[in-house]
Amino acid sequence: MPRTSEEYIQSVRDGREVYYRGKRVDDITTHPVLRIAVAHAADLFNSKDRLYDDPNYGRISKYFKIPRNTEDLLARHRLIYEDTLRFDGLFNIVQAIGSDALFSLMIMARKVDGKYRTNYYERVMKYYEYVVKNDLAIAVAQTDVKGHRAKRPHEQQDPDLYLRVVEVRDDGIVVNGAKIHTTQGPVANEIIVLPYRAMVEGDRDYAVAFAVPANAKGLKFIVRPVLEYDGNPNAVNSAARFEVESLTIFDHVFIPWDRVFLFREWDMAGPLAWYFATYHRFTAISYRAATANLYLGAALLAARANGIENAPHVRDWIIQMIMYKEIMRMGAMAAALEPIIDEGIAVPNPVYTNVSKLYSNAHFIDVIHGLIDIAGGLIATMPSHDDLRNNDERGYITKYLAGAVDGETRYKIMSLVRELSASHLAGYLLTAMIHAEGSEAASKIGMMREYNFREAEELVNRVLSKLRI
Amino acid sequence: MPRTSEEYIQSVRDGREVYYRGKRVDDITTHPVLRIAVAHAADLFNSKDRLYDDPNYGRISKYFKIPRNTEDLLARHRLIYEDTLRFDGLFNIVQAIGSDALFSLMIMARKVDGKYRTNYYERVMKYYEYVVKNDLAIAVAQTDVKGHRAKRPHEQQDPDLYLRVVEVRDDGIVVNGAKIHTTQGPVANEIIVLPYRAMVEGDRDYAVAFAVPANAKGLKFIVRPVLEYDGNPNAVNSAARFEVESLTIFDHVFIPWDRVFLFREWDMAGPLAWYFATYHRFTAISYRAATANLYLGAALLAARANGIENAPHVRDWIIQMIMYKEIMRMGAMAAALEPIIDEGIAVPNPVYTNVSKLYSNAHFIDVIHGLIDIAGGLIATMPSHDDLRNNDERGYITKYLAGAVDGETRYKIMSLVRELSASHLAGYLLTAMIHAEGSEAASKIGMMREYNFREAEELVNRVLSKLRI
Amino acid sequence: MPRTSEEYIQSVRDGREVYYRGKRVDDITTHPVLRIAVAHAADLFNSKDRLYDDPNYGRISKYFKIPRNTEDLLARHRLIYEDTLRFDGLFNIVQAIGSDALFSLMIMARKVDGKYRTNYYERVMKYYEYVVKNDLAIAVAQTDVKGHRAKRPHEQQDPDLYLRVVEVRDDGIVVNGAKIHTTQGPVANEIIVLPYRAMVEGDRDYAVAFAVPANAKGLKFIVRPVLEYDGNPNAVNSAARFEVESLTIFDHVFIPWDRVFLFREWDMAGPLAWYFATYHRFTAISYRAATANLYLGAALLAARANGIENAPHVRDWIIQMIMYKEIMRMGAMAAALEPIIDEGIAVPNPVYTNVSKLYSNAHFIDVIHGLIDIAGGLIATMPSHDDLRNNDERGYITKYLAGAVDGETRYKIMSLVRELSASHLAGYLLTAMIHAEGSEAASKIGMMREYNFREAEELVNRVLSKLRI
Amino acid sequence: MPRTSEEYIQSVRDGREVYYRGKRVDDITTHPVLRIAVAHAADLFNSKDRLYDDPNYGRISKYFKIPRNTEDLLARHRLIYEDTLRFDGLFNIVQAIGSDALFSLMIMARKVDGKYRTNYYERVMKYYEYVVKNDLAIAVAQTDVKGHRAKRPHEQQDPDLYLRVVEVRDDGIVVNGAKIHTTQGPVANEIIVLPYRAMVEGDRDYAVAFAVPANAKGLKFIVRPVLEYDGNPNAVNSAARFEVESLTIFDHVFIPWDRVFLFREWDMAGPLAWYFATYHRFTAISYRAATANLYLGAALLAARANGIENAPHVRDWIIQMIMYKEIMRMGAMAAALEPIIDEGIAVPNPVYTNVSKLYSNAHFIDVIHGLIDIAGGLIATMPSHDDLRNNDERGYITKYLAGAVDGETRYKIMSLVRELSASHLAGYLLTAMIHAEGSEAASKIGMMREYNFREAEELVNRVLSKLRI
Repeated sequence: MPRTSEEYIQSVRDGREVYYRGKRVDDITTHPVLRIAVAHAADLFNSKDRLYDDPNYGRISKYFKIPRNTEDLLARHRLIYEDTLRFDGLFNIVQAIGSDALFSLMIMARKVDGKYRTNYYERVMKYYEYVVKNDLAIAVAQTDVKGHRAKRPHEQQDPDLYLRVVEVRDDGIVVNGAKIHTTQGPVANEIIVLPYRAMVEGDRDYAVAFAVPANAKGLKFIVRPVLEYDGNPNAVNSAARFEVESLTIFDHVFIPWDRVFLFREWDMAGPLAWYFATYHRFTAISYRAATANLYLGAALLAARANGIENAPHVRDWIIQMIMYKEIMRMGAMAAALEPIIDEGIAVPNPVYTNVSKLYSNAHFIDVIHGLIDIAGGLIATMPSHDDLRNNDERGYITKYLAGAVDGETRYKIMSLVRELSASHLAGYLLTAMIHAEGSEAASKIGMMREYNFREAEELVNRVLSKLRI
Repeated sequence: MPRTSEEYIQSVRDGREVYYRGKRVDDITTHPVLRIAVAHAADLFNSKDRLYDDPNYGRISKYFKIPRNTEDLLARHRLIYEDTLRFDGLFNIVQAIGSDALFSLMIMARKVDGKYRTNYYERVMKYYEYVVKNDLAIAVAQTDVKGHRAKRPHEQQDPDLYLRVVEVRDDGIVVNGAKIHTTQGPVANEIIVLPYRAMVEGDRDYAVAFAVPANAKGLKFIVRPVLEYDGNPNAVNSAARFEVESLTIFDHVFIPWDRVFLFREWDMAGPLAWYFATYHRFTAISYRAATANLYLGAALLAARANGIENAPHVRDWIIQMIMYKEIMRMGAMAAALEPIIDEGIAVPNPVYTNVSKLYSNAHFIDVIHGLIDIAGGLIATMPSHDDLRNNDERGYITKYLAGAVDGETRYKIMSLVRELSASHLAGYLLTAMIHAEGSEAASKIGMMREYNFREAEELVNRVLSKLRI
Repeated sequence: MPRTSEEYIQSVRDGREVYYRGKRVDDITTHPVLRIAVAHAADLFNSKDRLYDDPNYGRISKYFKIPRNTEDLLARHRLIYEDTLRFDGLFNIVQAIGSDALFSLMIMARKVDGKYRTNYYERVMKYYEYVVKNDLAIAVAQTDVKGHRAKRPHEQQDPDLYLRVVEVRDDGIVVNGAKIHTTQGPVANEIIVLPYRAMVEGDRDYAVAFAVPANAKGLKFIVRPVLEYDGNPNAVNSAARFEVESLTIFDHVFIPWDRVFLFREWDMAGPLAWYFATYHRFTAISYRAATANLYLGAALLAARANGIENAPHVRDWIIQMIMYKEIMRMGAMAAALEPIIDEGIAVPNPVYTNVSKLYSNAHFIDVIHGLIDIAGGLIATMPSHDDLRNNDERGYITKYLAGAVDGETRYKIMSLVRELSASHLAGYLLTAMIHAEGSEAASKIGMMREYNFREAEELVNRVLSKLRI
Repeated sequence: MPRTSEEYIQSVRDGREVYYRGKRVDDITTHPVLRIAVAHAADLFNSKDRLYDDPNYGRISKYFKIPRNTEDLLARHRLIYEDTLRFDGLFNIVQAIGSDALFSLMIMARKVDGKYRTNYYERVMKYYEYVVKNDLAIAVAQTDVKGHRAKRPHEQQDPDLYLRVVEVRDDGIVVNGAKIHTTQGPVANEIIVLPYRAMVEGDRDYAVAFAVPANAKGLKFIVRPVLEYDGNPNAVNSAARFEVESLTIFDHVFIPWDRVFLFREWDMAGPLAWYFATYHRFTAISYRAATANLYLGAALLAARANGIENAPHVRDWIIQMIMYKEIMRMGAMAAALEPIIDEGIAVPNPVYTNVSKLYSNAHFIDVIHGLIDIAGGLIATMPSHDDLRNNDERGYITKYLAGAVDGETRYKIMSLVRELSASHLAGYLLTAMIHAEGSEAASKIGMMREYNFREAEELVNRVLSKLRI
């Protein structure tokens, strides 16, 4: 049954163990900071037209629609892009990432079952039915803390530095370890856990995938400090919207068998991670293109406020922002147009997805650079919102910050620009744009492995074969 | 009737006035340099599967198929991409650019007729029928020599610095002026002339579009020196393939009315130039993506020959080359997926087309940089092909140029790399990649004018409207 | 008499009108935020070896030593570089900028006196004596708020958008207007006001330079919110050190004649701004080189903590940081080696100074990019200092954040990296590095005007003169 | 005795074995291509003020003056810079590189003698006296052909892929192998051979340094084809000046003991290579700064010819060219200001030298990019010099290529621009700027090894030590 936002909010008051800035949080829905992340997730359930009628599962969220072809992938791209716009440029992850994981598990479960005579596909589809019928909010915990980067999971000094199976019981398994960067884990209903990387036989206890409710015993979320809002009375967009990440601790958490989707089939860990990465990078380029509108719009308004919208260097920066946005969208369209159809499910083309994602990794910094250049030094030294509210100061501020628009309007625009380009939020977003959904180095290594060089090699070999010396 | 390559070759022995390096060329098909440009154009007529059955015009070249929808534009992209691959990475322009111009004229003719009660559409379609039924090779002369850049056509000191109508007769018009950068003009059957830019009323004598046979009286082609081949016995790919550009002089050339497609409707010059630019940039990103394979393949082979294919900096350059190629292709796919349908004809989406083209302008230099970095200084100082052929020297050269492959193989790879990245060809291509199909500055100005900023502005205005200070 | 830091602190408890976050500050030396900026300035007075024996003025601060030659400029570069290192990578502006202004005024006063038969030089030297003998802390207010960028001072709708003379009295002048970006103005003893730009005759009331005590009647400082520290319990270096900027209001402030250093000599405003910009950019490249060490050191430690110090992409980023630092230093050395000697005073070579400064404007963003890339996503999602202090969480955090070093050490390194590259401080510094001491666009225009192109032109003209065609 | 240019020319008619494009060259001084390289070298002997009075050696070339301090290094920088300007922007290597090698050998000879009780210093100084008194032209052959890059000299499949000692005789040694990129080797009097890299004990037969006359038996020069001139009647600067490189074969060449400067002291090969690289990179940044003037001047003239010298994008490119030139010069000055004094000889500071050189490697491509962007597509498609000479065509060309200057002037400027940015010369220079004097990768590895990170580490450790969590 589709849920209302209120039903979602009630559902996360479930005794989960969440820490924020050194304190256990009793109720995330009323906590002064976390409630905003809850409210953002809740907003997803308010979206008009967010449901469709599935022949098998009835009226369910569009995020969970299994893509079968180009049209479905294009629709998924638009859904993520438009929802991100609707939520003021901020991605709303809680059903997007869950479906990225579920589609990957569906494809891989078939493959693992075929090779190992397991029954994962049945488990995955039963869990999928549970998720879609209950309209759940899902987080995915994939990135291990990784310890020494040059060592494999089973080679680490502390064996828990990748999450692993520490006990096998009749009714399920017990896992121990930690995952990092779990976006919206603290406010989700369920956590899907996936392996981070390809593994070797010695890593078999680390080759595990499963789902677990957020209030499971032993599961603990240590939330990042939301410095863009918490303690910052000059927040603009961040005063109303943000998502939270956590260091997610699994201290001997029990998982019943029907929620285990991979267990010691070590050669399947890499492919599963790959499918998820591909789906999730497609999601990423879709929301990043929408977020880019915040920067593009702010740059336009700031340029006009400063009276420089026709200056050539301003034009160059704005073109860069357009390219940032549109290369993401072009990549998503091309990825949908030439999908891989695997086990009857459409996977976005990994080359176009990765090209777009690599562009986004490398060039978000140019978007920030451009916005700072257009806005001017004012964003570093301007008075605070409280100063504007003080009647002794307000007159001076509005008089002296006038540009090609009045001082109050320019102040507000610059306050948003400060947040987008010269604040904790900017640093947080820049780090995310560089590292989230897989680092540049990892994506490049993947690209070199997957890319089909045959066309280029044949061409050059043909040219060389004609050379007579 | 579809032509054979031999028929095409015979057709250009027509007395046209062509100059090459200070000499009038009697027969371009036997001239030691120009015959190679002729042979390249002729090759187009040898392509298997180059024809289709048109319901109105019978069996004609696929290049002339009027695009009506996404599918047609995708097919056109693939046609240009694959032909460029087939011709060793070199674009073959002679029907691609002609159809770019004809589609633009079809759309604009309808619009001009609607506004000015002219009969251009009928003329254009009659000329189109003539072209497709005779399977002609076409060049487009659009870029004027432009004189002082800061002045409009009618403001130039010498009124001929943009091509213009100098006489109006009962049977047609007489034009005078010159066009530059006319690719394959000297080897085409027909030249289509289009206005270069938007015009004002004072420019009305410059607002002219028409078609003219290459051997028309008063038409003169001064061909660029083909320095990548002519005088260079170390040419590799250029020994077999190149196209030529000309400075194309119109010295009082007469055009009969049925070949005149725009005449003094000055407000229509800009839109016509825009439609052609959009089609032709779509063509450009399609062939540039194919040409990129030469660089990608050469980089791979050079890296292997040097034994450094796994070095991280080599990987980074190759990823850049992949991105160069694939951003072109993504742009073409997206442009086909969201076309503008105008007067029943599908125009590639100008935003994605221009984003890709701007990327290509700016980043071809990185492709060259990468190839030089991978190859090493050898490409600057290596012996000539003649040295390799001298038996006293050959042993030394093949002994000492051995790398991770034998010395002869490495020599050949490096000879191609020299041509692609450190030769006259490289300079010619780099200049073309930066300037052809419209400069970066022009494309940026166009993008700023056309881009729909509404989405971004609405988002930011909504965010700001919530800010209470 | 040289002062102690305590004497400096007492000296700024003088009733000045300072606002911070909407409240009038009674005593800046005890205010929870501003006292840190005071303490940083006070530290300057604790430096060992900060004094020298001047033949004319006795034992005074080295910052005020008038440079006469290469050796003096090199010593000044080292003084600023080493003090910035000493103060944990943070520039300490309060005597550096004052001396930049005083040297400029000395040179220009001679020139103005020569042309206009004024007695500015005497006033400037008397004021200089007052400053150096009392060992004062000085701020410079130069940047006007500027209103509409395309209009001159006297063309603005509101005539106060550049600071101007509004009344001329027997005993002095009254000025009105505002200056922005006044670094450490709120904690300085004296404010030196300089014109921002070149002026025309209509701007003569805006052509004014003077000095004024910080507690002058009508002078008001609206301080920027120090978001890197205030409200942020995760601050590291910012918990102990920062400088503050203000929007500085001059509401009918009276200036006695002996403190007026330029008055309506409008043609001298541009040259005065130019000399100050040149001195201050030399100061800037000197401190920026020192600040770069924070980034270089943090990058090294983060790379080692992650176990990736030998990865090629890490090496590339570190080389970029070295280049950032050393191009500043090379520029400072070259600027000292080839000074302009004007009115007997050595001015740093403006070409090398500006080249270095432009490099610094454009490339600080690469320094941040590199640090984020090396550190990883952890800096966006890591727990807070408070979490580490909670015993229920500390064990998990230190266990799971272990890398190639133990978890606590890595946490601390990453906390500093977060501050340097992904926090409000990073945004503030990045904005400063792009805009402070003159924007890129302004510096480029200046460079084009000043640069001596003769050498290049003569060379090319000689080459062309040999070309016979 | 100082020589005249004529004496130099006569001295190289000595029976040396030179091959050009597959043919043995009888007399390089009359060969249609090689004589130009000879003439360029000969020009060095015509320079006014090229000599000074040395207390020990009498009147000798300034290039050979042993640098003892900052002043000497600054003078050496200016000498190379100004000679490069004098020779139309083209470096004249034949005494610069020889002295780079000799200074390195002097320093190292002392060190080797100290450790191994050899008498190399005496040999080096005797050879130095021979060189300076006879005013010789010297080439240095350092770069081995290197075979498989991942293998050390003694590990190569063919032991000759690094030059090595194959026989030890009473009167000297016999060497076999090849060196590549030997600039002006074919026109020098003497070749100094240096080891390319650091070696291990197994490489001891490769640890060899010596000098040999260019006409020694068994020494063979295979010259690169000079494609920028040979076969190119549109050459401008290249019609009068170029240097040549060779693949230099040592086929069992005998070296008498008094010309052997390193022999099997394998641990000294790396340091010797390092000293030479440091001197020669100082030379490189000095001449590259001068060469940059060709580009800067051509860009200025082309911008004016096109009437766009005030366009902002043109200004940006020109600023880039200024930065390219001046960062080289700043680096040279700083390197002279803080030299290493070793064995009484001043070595340019390696950090500033390498920073400048790395900047030059990476950014020459931007110089070319800028020049192409400013010039426009004309440089790819313009008529040939022969067309301009044909009276039927000349009128059209000069009429239609008029810009903001007359057509003939613009043609000539563009012809030079074509050569500098879009020709074989451009490719050759770009390759040289990227690879000559050591690749970027090699320089980066060296920098990481040598750079003093202590300052940065101490700063960050001090900051971290204050952090209490």
